[in-house]
Formats: sequence, structure tokens, C-alpha cells
Amino acid sequence: MYALGRHLLLELENCNKEVLDDPDFLRDCLNEAAIKCGATVVGESFYHFSPCGVSGVVNIAESHISIHTWPEYRYAAVDVFTCGDEVAPEEAAKLIAQKLEAGNRSLIELRRGIMEESRDGSAVK
Amino acid sequence: MYALGRHLLLELENCNKEVLDDPDFLRDCLNEAAIKCGATVVGESFYHFSPCGVSGVVNIAESHISIHTWPEYRYAAVDVFTCGDEVAPEEAAKLIAQKLEAGNRSLIELRRGIMEESRDGSAVK
Repeated sequence: MYALGRHLLLELENCNKEVLDDPDFLRDCLNEAAIKCGATVVGESFYHFSPCGVSGVVNIAESHISIHTWPEYRYAAVDVFTCGDEVAPEEAAKLIAQKLEAGNRSLIELRRGIMEESRDGSAVK
Repeated sequence: MYALGRHLLLELENCNKEVLDDPDFLRDCLNEAAIKCGATVVGESFYHFSPCGVSGVVNIAESHISIHTWPEYRYAAVDVFTCGDEVAPEEAAKLIAQKLEAGNRSLIELRRGIMEESRDGSAVK
């Protein structure tokens, strides 16, 4: 059995609250993370809330990277969802945690799209 | 304790493979799901792969709804991530599973951003 996708779910606490409320910084950060892990960016959407907080998603050819921030709690929820063997989602997760200066971080990895392998090694469902 | 966000992760199998490869259908589907669950759409990004497959994200004021499809396996990975008490992410998940005609479905719910409550009921970290 193998999985079509790897989905890393990051809980980032005690972050720098200034950057959590800076959509331009976060856009650059997620794009840099996408490149760092070997992904190809195909679209994005960022939104700055009033009075504070940002929701951002970078759509990548290998799935997506998303962030939702609560500057008032110095907290960010980050997802790095990738498929294929040529990307390293951990690299993206590590870079984002560093850029946000997260004091505490936890990570869950889920495998998405579990497939059985056929005799020739291709996936079958 | 309570959570800032609810994150539903859907595994949809044995879907209608035609709709899994139709970015316009999926765009309408995710936007309809966002409205259905009471969310406000603030942005989107959809990408149609060659030879097949779609990656799509609808950025909502309450977080995001994403889909990644593998028509060749009749499989879609769907995430419905919401915050606040005024949205019902299950409604979005249910609608998407119906629209994709998923024969098999499984769902995991994760709570994101666990907070302790202060004496006045507001979250503290």
C-alpha cells in the first residue's frame, strides 16, 4: 500500500505576532516554502481580516500550502499537503515555523489516498 | 478548553470520474458548499492538470475548503477547515460528497488551535 498524498498539519504557537498579521510577509513566506520543498506554484489567495488575522493559500501542482493566523493568540494553523516523491513537505514546514519564529510547534502527518499496488507497481483502487 | 478551528478531512472514493476532472464543476461545487455551510468566500484558486486532475481551493473568511482529485483512481481528498460557531462544516462536506457521487467516504475531524478559557470565557494561550 502507498499514499497518493502526504498531509502535514502544523500547530504553531508563540509566534511573532507582527508577522502573523502581515499578508505580504506570509505570501512571500508560503511561496518561498513551496519553492524550498520542490513544489510548483500554480495559484494563490490571501485575505487580511479586520481587525487582524490572515487566511492564505498557495495552490501548488503537488496540492496546497495554507495558513490561518490568529495574531491575538500568537497562533497559526499551517497545512502542507503534497503528492509525488519529488517534494519534501518537511522542508516547507520547517521554513514556515522558522519564519514565524514559532516558540512551540507540533506536527501531525496524515497519509491521504491510500492505494493498493498492482503487480506492476502502479496504483489500483 | 476549546478549539479555534474545526478541520474536516474527507477521503472520497469511487466518485464520478467525469466531475473529478471538471474544474468548472468543482469550482461551483466548492463555492456552493461554502455558502451552504454559512461561510463567506474571499478568494479562490483552481488548476486543471494535464492529462487529468484538479487542485482547487476556496479561501473563506472562516478558513478554507480545498479539493485535490485523481480521476484515474476516482479519488478526491477534500478539506473543510472552518472557525467560528456560525458555520457548519459538515454541511459543506456532505454536499461535496453528494455532488461527486462518492461511493465510499471517510471523514476525520481535527480540532485546531486548542485554547484554554479565561475566567470571562475569552480564549487565552
